Amino acid sequence: MFIHDNISANDKNHLVMGGCDLCYLADKYKTPLYVMDEEKVRDNMRAYKNAIEDYYNSNGMVLYASKALSNLYMYKIAKEEGIGVDVVSGGELYTALKAGFDASKIYFHGNNKTYDEIELGIKSKIACFVADSINELDMIDRISGENNTVTNVMFRIKPGVDAHTHEFIATGQIDSKFGFAIENNEAYEIIKYAKNLKNIMVVGIHCHIGSQIFELEPFCEAARIMIKFMTKVKNELGVNIKRLNLGGGFGIKYVKEDTPVVYPKYIEAVSKVLKEECEKEGVDLPYVLMEPGRSVVGDAGVTLYTVGSIKEIKDVRKYVSVDGGMGDNPRYILYEAEYDAAVANRADAKEEEVVTVCGKCCESGDIIMKDAKLPKLKSGDILCVMSTGAYNYSMSSNYNRICRPAMVFVSGGKEKLAVKRETYEDLIRNDLM
Amino acid sequence: MFIHDNISANDKNHLVMGGCDLCYLADKYKTPLYVMDEEKVRDNMRAYKNAIEDYYNSNGMVLYASKALSNLYMYKIAKEEGIGVDVVSGGELYTALKAGFDASKIYFHGNNKTYDEIELGIKSKIACFVADSINELDMIDRISGENNTVTNVMFRIKPGVDAHTHEFIATGQIDSKFGFAIENNEAYEIIKYAKNLKNIMVVGIHCHIGSQIFELEPFCEAARIMIKFMTKVKNELGVNIKRLNLGGGFGIKYVKEDTPVVYPKYIEAVSKVLKEECEKEGVDLPYVLMEPGRSVVGDAGVTLYTVGSIKEIKDVRKYVSVDGGMGDNPRYILYEAEYDAAVANRADAKEEEVVTVCGKCCESGDIIMKDAKLPKLKSGDILCVMSTGAYNYSMSSNYNRICRPAMVFVSGGKEKLAVKRETYEDLIRNDLM
Repeated sequence: MFIHDNISANDKNHLVMGGCDLCYLADKYKTPLYVMDEEKVRDNMRAYKNAIEDYYNSNGMVLYASKALSNLYMYKIAKEEGIGVDVVSGGELYTALKAGFDASKIYFHGNNKTYDEIELGIKSKIACFVADSINELDMIDRISGENNTVTNVMFRIKPGVDAHTHEFIATGQIDSKFGFAIENNEAYEIIKYAKNLKNIMVVGIHCHIGSQIFELEPFCEAARIMIKFMTKVKNELGVNIKRLNLGGGFGIKYVKEDTPVVYPKYIEAVSKVLKEECEKEGVDLPYVLMEPGRSVVGDAGVTLYTVGSIKEIKDVRKYVSVDGGMGDNPRYILYEAEYDAAVANRADAKEEEVVTVCGKCCESGDIIMKDAKLPKLKSGDILCVMSTGAYNYSMSSNYNRICRPAMVFVSGGKEKLAVKRETYEDLIRNDLM
Repeated sequence: MFIHDNISANDKNHLVMGGCDLCYLADKYKTPLYVMDEEKVRDNMRAYKNAIEDYYNSNGMVLYASKALSNLYMYKIAKEEGIGVDVVSGGELYTALKAGFDASKIYFHGNNKTYDEIELGIKSKIACFVADSINELDMIDRISGENNTVTNVMFRIKPGVDAHTHEFIATGQIDSKFGFAIENNEAYEIIKYAKNLKNIMVVGIHCHIGSQIFELEPFCEAARIMIKFMTKVKNELGVNIKRLNLGGGFGIKYVKEDTPVVYPKYIEAVSKVLKEECEKEGVDLPYVLMEPGRSVVGDAGVTLYTVGSIKEIKDVRKYVSVDGGMGDNPRYILYEAEYDAAVANRADAKEEEVVTVCGKCCESGDIIMKDAKLPKLKSGDILCVMSTGAYNYSMSSNYNRICRPAMVFVSGGKEKLAVKRETYEDLIRNDLM
């Protein structure tokens, strides 16, 4: 077990984050409860933003990959921090716009955008679409024509880099639904095709090699490959690629064994490669975009649960049930993801035994932490699971018709309710008899 | 590929279910769309209900395991068919009650019921709680006392039967968060403890050995073990177990290789075992409960998708993207579950090639059908994925902030919208800035 360094203890022996007593929050807002450290979110955004200033002469922009955690308040924070966002659906775009986010800093991803989504993007005057297939490119061209406009497009490219991550979240290889591969010339051909489309402006290329990556080299390698490709496209097709989007995938600390790279290091390392390669190839340095999602919000969030029934099966396993589970955090059942936790109402409690923390869903795979070393838990304890800021709320479901938790942002001793807890009435809102 | 026998074709060469043209429904309600064959749902319920009449002298009740698909309209159907339901959360209970379902036919499951859930059950005068731990039993006793009532309780028992199914959905073995094991005496001890609680009436025992099971024998074996246990409890503790709940888990046909048992056979086989064992042991035949969920709704439902971008990566794989995915059907990414499909707008189309049908989520594991044999699909085709009635809507999420689909029930050429499609406004309903 470990406790993030933004979490401390107060004189009640309670865990404290953002100056707020986590037991107080659990009591006030009930559990399960997502709690986000707003300053940590902002610090993470600034770390990337400053790195582009420091290492790349401000010639780029950080895009928060909002699928990691998307709600009005998150876009408000990103707006205040002066960064851009990427969205992957009409729903994310709608939410960003409703939060007052500047459309000219919104990039639209996705392997199968619908007509309505593309139209919403074009009418909202977003910065750019990241096109993923020829069907889609044709549709963007057509809808742009219908709206008498020319639309900026980047292309999602598969650089062929293997990022040593879970099969389900590795995306840079040729066998992927995303993008156009360099190795079989698809990438080259799509740009050749696009340059002749009347309502399309080819502005850049994009790659994303995977998720939860702990190494610098795959990003550097992807950067090298992308610059070579840019050069080829410039020399052979006369298309000047001005923007290079190197995606995200920067790993975070879920358990104490995880050793993430300090986030600005990615941009430092990649900047160096870009400068070297561009000089070697004799091309202009591109405007660079990077898309951290998990690493902006993941380690800034915790989930508070109340411990319920405890079942010790002698010589087999001890199960500790909490009042949430795969509905609010499906990452164990999806990826066997690991988490760590502490006890919010006994901040100094030490590891004492190995238990499996499971949820309240009628499903055996409904596990939050399997065989985790934890203090001896009692019914009524408030368990604080670390690093749940990314892909928990965003992947949450109403499985078993359980209401989704509330989300509170904390900062300087104040809390801000950003997402209200679902109610039973919400569950039947769209039901008709 | 295969097409369920409740689906036919009309003279437009469109697939038809419940007398409704599926292309018409896709056009009217848009895609993705869940479509349920109401008569098939009712037939499935009746098959179980009639089997209890035919093979067990009506001495029992079918409980629809509503976690498979829970909404107001489903409880209305179950009510009209005169069966009971089981619920696993306050949300399911609330929905059933809102649908006017008779509380005296509701059984409440779950490994970690909260105080509020138990209180709601007691105040609503449900039939019975299926208690899962000593903490919970104590809580039911206490809340019953607070409400001056005595509450019916069954106990979830682990019979130790291995049901040859996916690790995540096997539940009868000792290493499970659910219930009390017979083999280490937990089950015996909890009943001994419960019989002395003032506000608890021990009425029965329950077991559930797993999901998607294609054999009769595990159910028969579980029945034998449960009768032996009932006898021991009667002889040694003087507790007369009157109700025996043998759970569900009856497998359905997802792909053509699946060979489900004809549903009434389960009850026929189990009834025979119960009669034999009770006679042998000299105990009264218990009132029997069985809990089909998946087999009531699973093969009665299809999902309609519109085909979008198609990507053929030579010598690698062909990806066909549809306008839904893991948000509306997470069963591939959760269990690598298999599905089959047909083309709603070309009913006679035959298998021509092997493709991977993926969704529109930004996730590589977002797959509906991997390496499936299908007709050659074109953008705009309406793909009809079979057997999606269970654990699709109920497990759906807003991942990538994609709105969840509508659900339509069809019967006799008429359609009934049972769940409205989510809107962008729904997505931000609980967001605060």
